Amino acid sequence: MDLAQAREDLKKLQLKMAAYDHAVGLINYDGETSAPEGTADNRALTLGVLSGEMYKFNTAQETIDLLEYLEQHQDELDEKERRQVFLLLKSIRQLRKIPMDEYIAYQSLLVKSQDVWEKAKNNNDFESYRPYLEEVYATVKKFAAYCAPDKDPYDYWLNEYEEGMSMKFCDDFFGKLRERIVPLLKKIEEKPQIDVSFLKGDYPDDKQEELALYLMEVMGLDPEHVGLSTTEHPFTTSLGSHHDERITTHYHRDDFVSSLYSVVHEGGHALYDTGSADDLAYTVLDGGVSMGVHESQSRFYENIVGRSRGFIKFITPKLKELFPERLEGVTPEELYRAMNRVQPSLIRTEADEATYCLHVMVRYELEKAIMHDELQVKDLPEAWNKMYKEYLGVDVPDDTHGVLQDSHWSFGAIGYFPSYALGNAYGAQFLAKMKESVDVDACAEAGNLAPINDWNREHIWKHGALYPPKELIRNIVGEFSTEAYTTYLEEKFGEIYDL
Amino acid sequence: MDLAQAREDLKKLQLKMAAYDHAVGLINYDGETSAPEGTADNRALTLGVLSGEMYKFNTAQETIDLLEYLEQHQDELDEKERRQVFLLLKSIRQLRKIPMDEYIAYQSLLVKSQDVWEKAKNNNDFESYRPYLEEVYATVKKFAAYCAPDKDPYDYWLNEYEEGMSMKFCDDFFGKLRERIVPLLKKIEEKPQIDVSFLKGDYPDDKQEELALYLMEVMGLDPEHVGLSTTEHPFTTSLGSHHDERITTHYHRDDFVSSLYSVVHEGGHALYDTGSADDLAYTVLDGGVSMGVHESQSRFYENIVGRSRGFIKFITPKLKELFPERLEGVTPEELYRAMNRVQPSLIRTEADEATYCLHVMVRYELEKAIMHDELQVKDLPEAWNKMYKEYLGVDVPDDTHGVLQDSHWSFGAIGYFPSYALGNAYGAQFLAKMKESVDVDACAEAGNLAPINDWNREHIWKHGALYPPKELIRNIVGEFSTEAYTTYLEEKFGEIYDL
Repeated sequence: MDLAQAREDLKKLQLKMAAYDHAVGLINYDGETSAPEGTADNRALTLGVLSGEMYKFNTAQETIDLLEYLEQHQDELDEKERRQVFLLLKSIRQLRKIPMDEYIAYQSLLVKSQDVWEKAKNNNDFESYRPYLEEVYATVKKFAAYCAPDKDPYDYWLNEYEEGMSMKFCDDFFGKLRERIVPLLKKIEEKPQIDVSFLKGDYPDDKQEELALYLMEVMGLDPEHVGLSTTEHPFTTSLGSHHDERITTHYHRDDFVSSLYSVVHEGGHALYDTGSADDLAYTVLDGGVSMGVHESQSRFYENIVGRSRGFIKFITPKLKELFPERLEGVTPEELYRAMNRVQPSLIRTEADEATYCLHVMVRYELEKAIMHDELQVKDLPEAWNKMYKEYLGVDVPDDTHGVLQDSHWSFGAIGYFPSYALGNAYGAQFLAKMKESVDVDACAEAGNLAPINDWNREHIWKHGALYPPKELIRNIVGEFSTEAYTTYLEEKFGEIYDL
Repeated sequence: MDLAQAREDLKKLQLKMAAYDHAVGLINYDGETSAPEGTADNRALTLGVLSGEMYKFNTAQETIDLLEYLEQHQDELDEKERRQVFLLLKSIRQLRKIPMDEYIAYQSLLVKSQDVWEKAKNNNDFESYRPYLEEVYATVKKFAAYCAPDKDPYDYWLNEYEEGMSMKFCDDFFGKLRERIVPLLKKIEEKPQIDVSFLKGDYPDDKQEELALYLMEVMGLDPEHVGLSTTEHPFTTSLGSHHDERITTHYHRDDFVSSLYSVVHEGGHALYDTGSADDLAYTVLDGGVSMGVHESQSRFYENIVGRSRGFIKFITPKLKELFPERLEGVTPEELYRAMNRVQPSLIRTEADEATYCLHVMVRYELEKAIMHDELQVKDLPEAWNKMYKEYLGVDVPDDTHGVLQDSHWSFGAIGYFPSYALGNAYGAQFLAKMKESVDVDACAEAGNLAPINDWNREHIWKHGALYPPKELIRNIVGEFSTEAYTTYLEEKFGEIYDL
């Protein structure tokens, strides 16, 4: 093999992977957005074939030979190529440990599982979904055993979503959060509650869509490359490269705030993805480095920017223009307080910042228990409801508003949820650093997010997956710590609730 | 090789083809429906990779060996397998004559070409589209020379869309149509024109969508397996199999009739595709046999059923419910006459039945001239306008309403248009036959299309591509003839215009 050719082949290999990812990603996206209801079996067949093809060329001896040759010549590669080879070898060596037929069967299972989950959620019917969820859990356990037989299976998956994450890390992390958040919530509870009654009303989809497109424009998302659609559970996906990005939202007729913050959250993911340097496109470095860093961006825009006093003041005229009947006479300050009301509640994606991490902890504890056979999937609804009572003090009325609310498990994302909490903590550290050079509050109030975007692009987005998360964080803020986050929460809500 | 294994491999090969078709079809569908504006280059890269993969496994020696083995054992195969092997070998032998890099480059070209066409149409800018169209024409000529060096290139492509079609056939066919249609139009011209002024108005998209969904229901399309979306140019596509079918339409704010008949037309295609017997799914026999037969179904529902007195009477209450201001006081008979007004016009898809084939003939003559280097693409707009004046007597105001109106050339469909006219003729023959056992008028007036659908399913749909078009037609109506069609037109419009 000759080095120049091998470098060319490395490019080709990644372009091929990107093309298949595009196809598979779009088939899934279509399933969530436009596909007729009865087409999941058809998608499962296609995804079975395509994932088999991907498995074959990924794990082919010639692929391994190419990557190992490049690994041996890594001193002659540039920094990006070195990281590409490292990441590819890591994932391919793992993939080779999973038998092909089991890998394919799992991809087909996930299509069905997502389809059944969505129907189960709409019909409050956990039982129909249970067998699929059992199989998903059984498979992720089995795959962990194949890939890392000496490792705890849950640790294996945590580390997949965030290099370096483990139960030890999470227990410590969540412990620190709890230490500061629980007393904060206690103090808030003793204060008079904020009025949010004026938020409830009748908000037609087309007005909510107009708001969504307006927010995407304010955020600086490029309409030539970022699309908007609607789904049961909002998400973001890149198709083939960061040049084609899609975000989704969900319009609730009686509540415009839900879609508003879904759009800003998913828009944050999309800014991160589309902010990758152009020469990362069609390589494994394109897009975000980890789910933790990804959530740091989505939750940064959703909360630190989107739920700031300045930003809410900025969007108030637009909200009044779109929803004049409901919001007449409401002041920006009243909106700010309403949109930041702290109230233990049922739905994670709509939780306030102070209680949010408790929702994540519930999921973390439940995943951990199932992964260690201390809890069975059939007992999940009961355990869920019990923990919501214990952690958040709320009674779960039905599984739709309980264990069925999130799509993640249906597509096999076990070990993902802690990333959301980690993202909150990263985000607060980024904010502290950003404030050294950017007047974040003034930008938010002016609706001028360009300086914020530029900072994030320069420090985070453009690097894609070039640096491992730990290194990226270290380069930007030094050591990881929860301090910035808990202090942010205490200051923000201390002021709002006059603690 | 062993026969049982070979039959199994034949199934697998076709499932694999279906999966790639699903991916490629969806990427194209997405490009027309949801993708952000600036993503065509990204799609072109992915489709380049996927079409290369398809080319490779289609033309692989092991594929040929398998099919030739089965061809040798065709007496031991069932009828369906025999036809599968025949069709596969035919297309693969052809594909092998096209160099892979040229094949891939062409797939990428088509993505760009469609993207540029759409923008060019919206901006009335033929010049921006010209280089792409030149390359499309150059490539189809080149491919014809590769695949059938001894055949006229335009004959080659005509035959691709309809087995057995040729210039000789078309010249004769169009000649016969002209002989009867031109005098008919002359007579109509002398009569007082029908009032259609009440059709023009303001029809919001959501009401038009409601009408579309209503029509799909009346037609008997299965909402579990047939989706509706919007595009610049309406079309129908199957994704992976007939279990996932999509139709599209286009809402014109000032004209509900356009989308109404787009939906019924595309719905006819979808009925045909989804009517394939279930055991044809994931084989090359799934869906329609040829574009001519396909158009016979779409135009049967659009015109013979959809523009019948009975059907228009049936949908009048729904139209009045959706568009009360415009249609108050209008009688079903007035609607019937308005929707059947004969008037030479600019846009093929909105043409009445009597002038429709003239639009097709213009395209046929132009394609023929370009394919034989008697006309250059750069001179197409002028030639188009001249022929519209000559054939239809209308002045084309701009290319948007002229040469840019159809999407077909942008995706390489040269030789397709005659299928529309052929479909009209087939349809009239089917109607005559159908009337022997089904009271078509009564069904249409009752909005009960089940007996019509059952007849079509039994005679046409369920067979998929099992019988070549000529054989299918022969089995149903005996010999092909234009007589039924021209008689149908003369009777229908003779009555309407009191000729």
